[in-house]
Formats: sequence, structure tokens, C-alpha cells
Amino acid sequence: MKMKKSLIIYLLSLNFLIAQIHEVEKDRIIDIFENLKQLGVNENQGNDRVAYSDFDIEARKYLSKKLEKIGAEVYTDFAGNLIAIYNPYNSKLKPISFGSHIDAVPNGGHYDGQVGVIASIEVLQTINSKNIKFNHPLEFIIFSNEEGGVFGSRALAGKINNETLEILTVSGYTNREGVNRIGGKSDRIFEVKREMGDIHAFVEMHIEQGNNLYSKSLDIGIVEGIVGLKWWNVKIEGFSNHAGTTPMNQRQDAMIAAAKFILIVNETVNSFDGAQVGTVGRISAKPGVPNVIPGIVNLSLELRDLNSEKISMIYNEILKKIKTIEEETKTTFSFSPIDATGDPALMDQRLMNILKEVSSDLGYTNMVLPSGAGHDAQDMALIAPSAMIFVPSVDGISHSPNEFTEFEMIFKGANVLLNSLKKIDKTKLD
Amino acid sequence: MKMKKSLIIYLLSLNFLIAQIHEVEKDRIIDIFENLKQLGVNENQGNDRVAYSDFDIEARKYLSKKLEKIGAEVYTDFAGNLIAIYNPYNSKLKPISFGSHIDAVPNGGHYDGQVGVIASIEVLQTINSKNIKFNHPLEFIIFSNEEGGVFGSRALAGKINNETLEILTVSGYTNREGVNRIGGKSDRIFEVKREMGDIHAFVEMHIEQGNNLYSKSLDIGIVEGIVGLKWWNVKIEGFSNHAGTTPMNQRQDAMIAAAKFILIVNETVNSFDGAQVGTVGRISAKPGVPNVIPGIVNLSLELRDLNSEKISMIYNEILKKIKTIEEETKTTFSFSPIDATGDPALMDQRLMNILKEVSSDLGYTNMVLPSGAGHDAQDMALIAPSAMIFVPSVDGISHSPNEFTEFEMIFKGANVLLNSLKKIDKTKLD
Repeated sequence: MKMKKSLIIYLLSLNFLIAQIHEVEKDRIIDIFENLKQLGVNENQGNDRVAYSDFDIEARKYLSKKLEKIGAEVYTDFAGNLIAIYNPYNSKLKPISFGSHIDAVPNGGHYDGQVGVIASIEVLQTINSKNIKFNHPLEFIIFSNEEGGVFGSRALAGKINNETLEILTVSGYTNREGVNRIGGKSDRIFEVKREMGDIHAFVEMHIEQGNNLYSKSLDIGIVEGIVGLKWWNVKIEGFSNHAGTTPMNQRQDAMIAAAKFILIVNETVNSFDGAQVGTVGRISAKPGVPNVIPGIVNLSLELRDLNSEKISMIYNEILKKIKTIEEETKTTFSFSPIDATGDPALMDQRLMNILKEVSSDLGYTNMVLPSGAGHDAQDMALIAPSAMIFVPSVDGISHSPNEFTEFEMIFKGANVLLNSLKKIDKTKLD
Repeated sequence: MKMKKSLIIYLLSLNFLIAQIHEVEKDRIIDIFENLKQLGVNENQGNDRVAYSDFDIEARKYLSKKLEKIGAEVYTDFAGNLIAIYNPYNSKLKPISFGSHIDAVPNGGHYDGQVGVIASIEVLQTINSKNIKFNHPLEFIIFSNEEGGVFGSRALAGKINNETLEILTVSGYTNREGVNRIGGKSDRIFEVKREMGDIHAFVEMHIEQGNNLYSKSLDIGIVEGIVGLKWWNVKIEGFSNHAGTTPMNQRQDAMIAAAKFILIVNETVNSFDGAQVGTVGRISAKPGVPNVIPGIVNLSLELRDLNSEKISMIYNEILKKIKTIEEETKTTFSFSPIDATGDPALMDQRLMNILKEVSSDLGYTNMVLPSGAGHDAQDMALIAPSAMIFVPSVDGISHSPNEFTEFEMIFKGANVLLNSLKKIDKTKLD
């Protein structure tokens, strides 16, 4: 009796597996990866496909063709988001949306958001080739300018304004110019805003960019929340003068003030308990030549934490200490927030449960974890139940030519995405 | 008897003055100044006529026309030095050379070397209009790329090499490209080298760029020597990683290392007695965006002193302290000397005596002083007896839009130049 019962359970579960579980094709993932890499790769083997660059435009063309081949309706919205609607049965239900981004930081890596885009396209290819039926239309999105402040998803969430459009990006173009370059329409951009309820659910796959999964040899991460971040432009004004004829004690050297500031930021962030981080990533000095004392230094300040209040606390602490630097160096500091910041965002618990269940059904080891990096899912969470799948980053390295994720892991992530979309399609989420 | 003798002396000296002393025309100085200013002025009222820029090319055209009008033979040598030979009597003697430069640091001032160029041209205009006879040919030189390491004068002194040609200048062009842009011939550049004895004497007029003359209300400075300077490119290598996902204690942040370096330079230079100066004027971070920990920071180091050994001592002291920074920040530093450095140079005592005598004869208050800034006269001193006339910089401000020298002072400097050239013409200097 005992044997028989377990045999039935075995056969039932086998049947369940055969009926429910689908797999994508790893070779097609590798093929898209290699082709996409060429549209951005630089001499360091890094990725220079910054948002709005010629590489960005070429890559969008390449991926659009792939998507059109499976019968998706492909277009670029006014915010420069590349959107593919896959809806062979003309469903009138709300779409299930998923996607990520293909833009990189300068000399970045080839995994980052790309793995999410590549996996999503392969998921669509598999759905098409295996004729997997969905009740909801599928909406795949490549968000515009993710690295410069999750621009495209913020536009969808209605969080951009005219100021955001004038921000100069690393491509040399403002968001306004850039959006128009890639096929958007900056003068109608505010029309892309979606309302809560327009989308059934949103799922993004991305590399972890941290070392939780890789160091623990896990396959899949299920994101519980995304830390908030704030950016500021910091301008330090001293007085520009000849470096040969101005005695050391008569200088108002903005570079010395900048050096003190960078160390103060580091010390202050480290003086709090917790996992908060603070970074000065950008700096320029004017006039910027060896024989002139810099009169102006511009730099960036970024602070991140899961708690918005802690970010404010650290910022205020830094501001307090600036006064001493101003006095010591006879310079003045001014701070202006960059409109590319994000509040901490929680993922949808129901979607998280689906991702976890599917990962386990597939036999993939997994864990629930927070995201230290900002993502498009952060803003999508404002308008739809949202979730994120992380795949492991080797050694946690990211935004670097050394960024690496095994194809096997992208394959596993894509399988979680595909099978989760299937379950989400059948789940009531209102 | 006694009365009669002093009357004779009075008349004799009056006769001497009438015969010997000439004056330039202030209005023509102002005219050239205003026209030249237009070829470089930016929205801050600063000067963007950096070497090899379009402004540089336009200004050279404008000044060439002025020089051709008085019958000078004008040409650009292979090193991009603009040279005007004024020799109406076809003298076969060695030339008396004089001149300065018109290139500026980015957003620099309109006085700097320009006052020397303007005064020199007005001196030639006066010599021409008043038909003042010289035994020696007069050679007026506008040196190429002074601000980027006294390039043109170093070429004349035979102190440049192929490496110097490949240095990238603030114009965006290398010296090689820049020289060719302004009418030089980089592939024949080494032919411009002159030998000791080719030039009878060299005199440069320039603003002081310090506050000795202005604070003491003096008219004229007679330079006794020019401090030496050394430049290095400093490269700091850490590891570029995601600013959100990399914990503070796992970073190899090249920006933190750069900040510590900038402060160490300042402290070390200040720890020695004397007037030495040290400056970090240029900095850039890679990739240089707010959300990535900089993996590489490049910056410049400049050290100046009248004593070469002290420069070496300070540099070695800095190198020692770098080791601690490297350990603390898990970064590595590398230093490469920039070939734009100059040894301390002494001016010719006989020429200094002439400048002092002429200044006093003209009734101009004056002092002998060192130059904290490098000048073309530094390298010209290697091939000819050389001297420099300084005019006051208001508040000692230089390399800044706020740089200012009164026209009256440029007028006085030009008169010292004109009358000194007359005396030098009659002085045996071999």
C-alpha cells in the first residue's frame, strides 16, 4: 500500500512537471548575448553602450528585428522605451509587463540589465516557438537610460519633469535630446505615464551586482525590496590663480576642499551602523590644468540606504562638517539635488511567492534578498505589483569590464521568468 | 663759476634725454589689446584662447597683419612660433630677440603674456614710425603653447623630443597636431633649434602674476631668476564597482586615494621652510558617474622652487607617504614625469643692469625680484643672454578672468622695453 501511494504521487508530480514546466533554449541566449556585446564593446572588453549613444541605437535596431520575427508589435514610446507587444490572440486583458535595460555605464559590463533583456526575449521566443498560451497580452520593455537615473521607468510612473529632461547625460546629450535620438518624442513625453492598475504585473530579471548569491553558490535571488538613493551635484568655489606665484597660505584651492569633502563623506557614512553606502563617483576641476590652482571643483555625491530617513541623517551630518572645510580652505560649497533619485521600494509579496515556488519547482537553489542597486522595478512598483529575479554576479563585480555571469545562470533565470509569467497569467492580483 | 658748471650739466643731461629717450603710444596699445581680447573672450570675460585653438589661429592672423604693415617679414617657424623680422637696413649682425606669448589657460586672463606681445608690437610700431635706427636686426617672437610647458621656446632651445610632441594639450590636440594646425611643420620641428651665440640678447615683458610690485606700488620689476618646476601625471588604480552593491569596507576606491594624495601633497609642501609651492590642478575619474566607484583617477602634480634639489626632496617625501595610502585604500599609484618641466634659470646681470638703468632714467619706480612662474625667457636663457621686464598684476591675480594690469603700466613697460633694446643694441655681450 505504501509503495503504491508514493508511486501515484510520483506519477502525478511527473505529470505536473510535464504539463507545467517549460525551458528556454540556452544556445539562443548565447547567440543574442554575443551579438549584443558587439554593439558596445570597447578595447578593454568593457561596454560603452551608454544611453542615447550610437551603440544604443544600433542595439535597439538589432533587438527590434528579433522581436518582429516572432510577430511582436514593436515600437518606441515617447520616453524612448522600446516596447514589444506579444498578443497573438488579441486579448483585451491588462498586459503582463517584463523587461530591463541595455544601456551601460561608461566602460561597464556586458551582463547588468542585458541579461534581463536577453532572457526576456528568449522567453518570448520560447513562448512563440512552443506556442505557449497566455490569457494576458505580454508587454516586453527595454527601458531608456536606466543608468542615468532609471529614466524610462520613471517616465512610465509619471515621476519626471522638465528638469529631468534637461539633465546632461554621459552620452553628451540631455535626456531631451537623447530621447529624440532613439525615437522618442520629448515634447509628448508626459503622455507615457501609466496609472496604477494599467498593468497586471511587472517582472524584471537582472544580475545581482552583489556577492550574496555567488558566495553562497545559489542559483536565483528573489528581491524583497530595493534601496533608495539620492544624488547631488556639489559645486565648490574657491579662487583660480597661478600655481607658481600664489604662496601656499594665500590660496583658495577648490581641489583641497574637494579632497577634504571626499574623505568627510567616507568617514560620515562609515560612522553609522548598517549597510548604507556613500560615493563620490564624478569629479572635474576648472580650469583643470597642472599650473593653475582650481577655482571650481564639481563633483557628485550619492547616498543609498533601505531607509530614506537614514539617508537624510547622513546628508545633514555631512552638511554640518562642510562648514569647517569652508573655513579652512576659504571656499564655499553648494549642493543641488539631481532629479534621478529613488525612494526605497518593496516588491509584491504574492509575486515573490510565485518566483520562489517556481525556482524551487525547477530545482534551483534560491534566497530572498534586498537589492543594493536601483532598478526600473523600483518605479514600476509605483504603478504595478512588481517583482525581480536576480542571477549571480561572479565575485559581486558589476559596472566593470570584469562583470561576469555564467550562461547557465542566465538560462536558469530565464526559466524562472518564463514559468513565473505562466503562473502570474493565471493569478488574480487586483 | 659754480652756477655755470651745473647749468652746463643740466643742459647736457637735457640734451641726453632728448636724444636718447623714446616713448611708445598708449592709444595703440589699447587698440591692440581690445582687438586681441575679442579673439578669445568667453562669457565670464575670461580668455579661452588656449594654444592651438581657433582663437589662437585667428589672433595670429590679426597680429601678423599689424606686423606686415610696418614692413616686418613675418613667418611661422616649424615649431609654430610666429616670428617677425624687422631689419630695414639689412643688417648682417645677430638679431636682438624679444617677445612673449598669446595663448592662455582655459578661462584665463587677457594680460599674462599678451601684454608682452602687445608692448613688443607697439615698440616695433614706434621704431618704425619714428625711424629709430638699430644696428642689429630685431626679431619679435610669439612663442607657441607657452601655457602647456613653454613649448615654442623649448623647441628653440632644443629641449623637446618626440614624446613632447605626443603630449595632449587642453585644446584637444597633441603638440604635434597643434603645431601643424597653426602653420608649423612637426616633422621638421627639430630644425628650429638655435645654438648659444645665434642671438645677441633676448628680452621678454610679462605681467608679474604675483603681488610684489602692486602691493609696493612699483612700476617695473626686473627679474633676477625664474623658479624651476616639475610636472607629473599621477595615475591611481583601484577597482571600479557598483556604488550601490559594494559595501564600504570592500571598496578599492581610487577617488578616496586621490583625496588622501591631494592632502598629502599640500601637507608635505607646507612642511618645508621656504617659498616652494605644490599644486594638483587637474583631475579626472573613470568611469566618472555618480553610481560607480571610480576604478581609476588621473591627476597632475606640480612642484616649483628656485632650487631643483628641494623639488626632488619634496617629491621623494610625497612618494614615501604614498605607501600608506596604497595600503589603506587597496590602490596603486604610478607617476610619470610630464616633459614640460623647467630648471631654475638666472637672468643676465648685464641686461638686468640696463633694464634697471633705463627704468630709473624714465623715472619709473622699480625692484629686482624672482619669478615664481615659468616663462619662455627660462629656455631662451639657455641660448642667449636673457632678461625679463615685469609689470604689476593688480592683487597678484593671474590665470583668471580677474587678472588685471593698468594700461599705464603696460605703457611704462613698453617704454622700458624700447629704450632697453636701444641700449642693448649698442652693448657688446659676447
